[in-house]
Amino acid sequence: MAERHAVDIIIAKRDGLELDRQTIRTLVAAYSRGDVPDYQMSAFLMAAFLQGMSSEETYALTDAMLASGQRIDLSHVPGRKVGKHSTGGVGDKVSLVLAPIVAACGVPVPKISGRGLGFTGGTLDKLESIPGLHTGMSADAYCRQVAEVGLVIAGQTAEIAPADKALYALRDVTGTVDFIPFIASSIMSKKLAEGIDALVLDVKCGRGAFMKEEADARQLAETLVGIGERMQTETVAWVTRMDAPLGRAAGNWPEIVEAVRCLQGDDVADLMEVVYTLAGDMLVLGRQAQTRQEGTAMAREAVATGRALDAFIRMVDRQGGDARTLDRPNERPGYEPAGSVNAVHAGYVASVDAGAVGHAVARMGAGRRQKDEEVDPLAGVVLNKKPGDAVAKDETLAWLYTHRVDALDSFRDAIGDAYRIQDDETAPPSTLVVDRFAGTEWQRGS
Amino acid sequence: MAERHAVDIIIAKRDGLELDRQTIRTLVAAYSRGDVPDYQMSAFLMAAFLQGMSSEETYALTDAMLASGQRIDLSHVPGRKVGKHSTGGVGDKVSLVLAPIVAACGVPVPKISGRGLGFTGGTLDKLESIPGLHTGMSADAYCRQVAEVGLVIAGQTAEIAPADKALYALRDVTGTVDFIPFIASSIMSKKLAEGIDALVLDVKCGRGAFMKEEADARQLAETLVGIGERMQTETVAWVTRMDAPLGRAAGNWPEIVEAVRCLQGDDVADLMEVVYTLAGDMLVLGRQAQTRQEGTAMAREAVATGRALDAFIRMVDRQGGDARTLDRPNERPGYEPAGSVNAVHAGYVASVDAGAVGHAVARMGAGRRQKDEEVDPLAGVVLNKKPGDAVAKDETLAWLYTHRVDALDSFRDAIGDAYRIQDDETAPPSTLVVDRFAGTEWQRGS
Repeated sequence: MAERHAVDIIIAKRDGLELDRQTIRTLVAAYSRGDVPDYQMSAFLMAAFLQGMSSEETYALTDAMLASGQRIDLSHVPGRKVGKHSTGGVGDKVSLVLAPIVAACGVPVPKISGRGLGFTGGTLDKLESIPGLHTGMSADAYCRQVAEVGLVIAGQTAEIAPADKALYALRDVTGTVDFIPFIASSIMSKKLAEGIDALVLDVKCGRGAFMKEEADARQLAETLVGIGERMQTETVAWVTRMDAPLGRAAGNWPEIVEAVRCLQGDDVADLMEVVYTLAGDMLVLGRQAQTRQEGTAMAREAVATGRALDAFIRMVDRQGGDARTLDRPNERPGYEPAGSVNAVHAGYVASVDAGAVGHAVARMGAGRRQKDEEVDPLAGVVLNKKPGDAVAKDETLAWLYTHRVDALDSFRDAIGDAYRIQDDETAPPSTLVVDRFAGTEWQRGS
Repeated sequence: MAERHAVDIIIAKRDGLELDRQTIRTLVAAYSRGDVPDYQMSAFLMAAFLQGMSSEETYALTDAMLASGQRIDLSHVPGRKVGKHSTGGVGDKVSLVLAPIVAACGVPVPKISGRGLGFTGGTLDKLESIPGLHTGMSADAYCRQVAEVGLVIAGQTAEIAPADKALYALRDVTGTVDFIPFIASSIMSKKLAEGIDALVLDVKCGRGAFMKEEADARQLAETLVGIGERMQTETVAWVTRMDAPLGRAAGNWPEIVEAVRCLQGDDVADLMEVVYTLAGDMLVLGRQAQTRQEGTAMAREAVATGRALDAFIRMVDRQGGDARTLDRPNERPGYEPAGSVNAVHAGYVASVDAGAVGHAVARMGAGRRQKDEEVDPLAGVVLNKKPGDAVAKDETLAWLYTHRVDALDSFRDAIGDAYRIQDDETAPPSTLVVDRFAGTEWQRGS
């Protein structure tokens, strides 16, 4: 693309015009080839950020980023492949529980996940805390695993949506991250490359999520569903609250421990509410259930019979993980609390600030400040008390797992400060699930 | 500057906040040093373009760009030094006539000019069409010439506002050129480095100017005056029309020929209206006249007595130019029309499209498509007929000077098409001068 042509596109967007699909595709392709430099692309990104993008433009951007790389073809695998994605939150181990459940019910789940960055963890880091487990694999190996195991959780290869990767890095340094059309197209360009026929999204909002406001989360959910519909991929998006950490554990191995327990039948209420809600949709989209209620019942059954745990173990095994560590995960050598946080006075837990917990857990070693930094697989927090719980004076609120013992007092302070304890009795939030968005066609069917 | 700090500044501007002077200065300084990369600066430019900049921010940007380089100090030269700048138009040789007039009246005129790019010519290219004349000189030589000759027209050195140079190049490729705060700060950062005490600006609007609309030109004029006032530099800005070429000649040597004739007393009406209007202000600002009327009378006198021409010749001589070529400039060897454009029918000239003439003259060899391209000093157009003139069938409308004779027919068509000839008699525009903007303090004095 000639430099002046790129300028014309920037000016059109700057002046608030709607760009056609071909123009966006040409721009993104030229950027991917290096024919459009970063300084032109960043001007375009800012113009789009401030002038807005229509749903057609957002779809075109998604399509262009998807087209910049490989789109995995799983059409040879029988059944409808259903993907799952969360926008991320503190203690969000939903995928680790949900994907094996759905796979155990006969719906193949191919999943490409990311690493943690900032205050939320990443599914890959959590899985890789299982000794020996790898998440890097070729597209061929990925496809074979879907066909043979029915479940895969792998890392993004360089071949998947490389334009999104480059654009994301540019957005990060040019103040153009928090823009729903960019967020939505970034997510969807990667998910649609996974080889899926349908997709369930968990859009998190609240103190422990990137999106603080419900209204923004709803708008993102609607945009995601719109793109999916336009791309002939049945898409359902749930908006769920993320104010306290989901479940009790935050950190890599601590979340594996909790996930395994849930797959063994532990009913961690808030976590399993989200899991079973999303399972209902995934099983309908996978054509294994007629209704979401039926899907949820099937999911409960898969846990109760142990088939869901089996599916998880098969995946771990296939990806090189030492499944024996999952027998008694809490007894893994070296996995011991470095300390605890205790209540300074009696009362009831009014709230636990998920954002504060997430930041503390990252500092404790579970997160990375920069890409490619190593994470401590064992570091994290396990909450003994959750919102609604009664606490006695000196009772343990949370256990801290960290090798950075020098800073233990600071972690203790941070987690202690995340708790708000009040005198009056209080109920836990009755439901985390806020709203559901679905495309017009399949909304009617379920 | 750390990368994240730059992001914070971009985000503040993106969100419509007003930045303080220190923040803008820090950003521009970091960009000049290469600590802020182009891709962050272009995002900032687009954010500012779309969110707007306050007059304080525009002043701060000017100040930051000025501070990025050298500011010439002429305080040792007696008298108030008065600068002049035009936003550029087709056939705009005002500086070539005006600067010597003002200098001849005792006001030192230090002037840094630019080269032509696009469809308007540049004063440097025009001057350099005089054999031997150079416009590149050190700051020292520039200062000595102001002290000893009272007049200098030189090229911008790399030391003058380098941040403006870098930002202009970036704006050009990121769709952020046409934004009054950027245009104004770019102009003023260079002019204020010239060593001037006061400044007269000619903001052109119409078909032969970069600004087509009078309203935009007025806004630019007001912004320029505001920056000047804020920088303790008395500034007057005139808005003048540029619909037909100014005077009769467009091109480098052709305009020198016309300028010399005007300095010899030829009263080319539209050109000299602008010259004498601006001279009135420059002489008041230089404290050689009490009123603009008095200044204009002094200017006429300087032409009538030949002192203005003498000043021009002294400058040419000092800058290495062969002043003998100016004795009979029209007889310079090789300076002969390659052809003419004749009227296809009789009538009255309703208009001559300056933009069309400018583009044709550039193609004839007088302009450059890219920086550093050589220009043909002799190429250009001389209009025999101007708006309001009666023409007979087959009478010459214009003479074409070009060495690109292969394309002569295409130039003939272009210039012919620029003329609109009508049956009814029509008057030339009564005045080109639209409006005058001046800072509050000195507006009262004159």
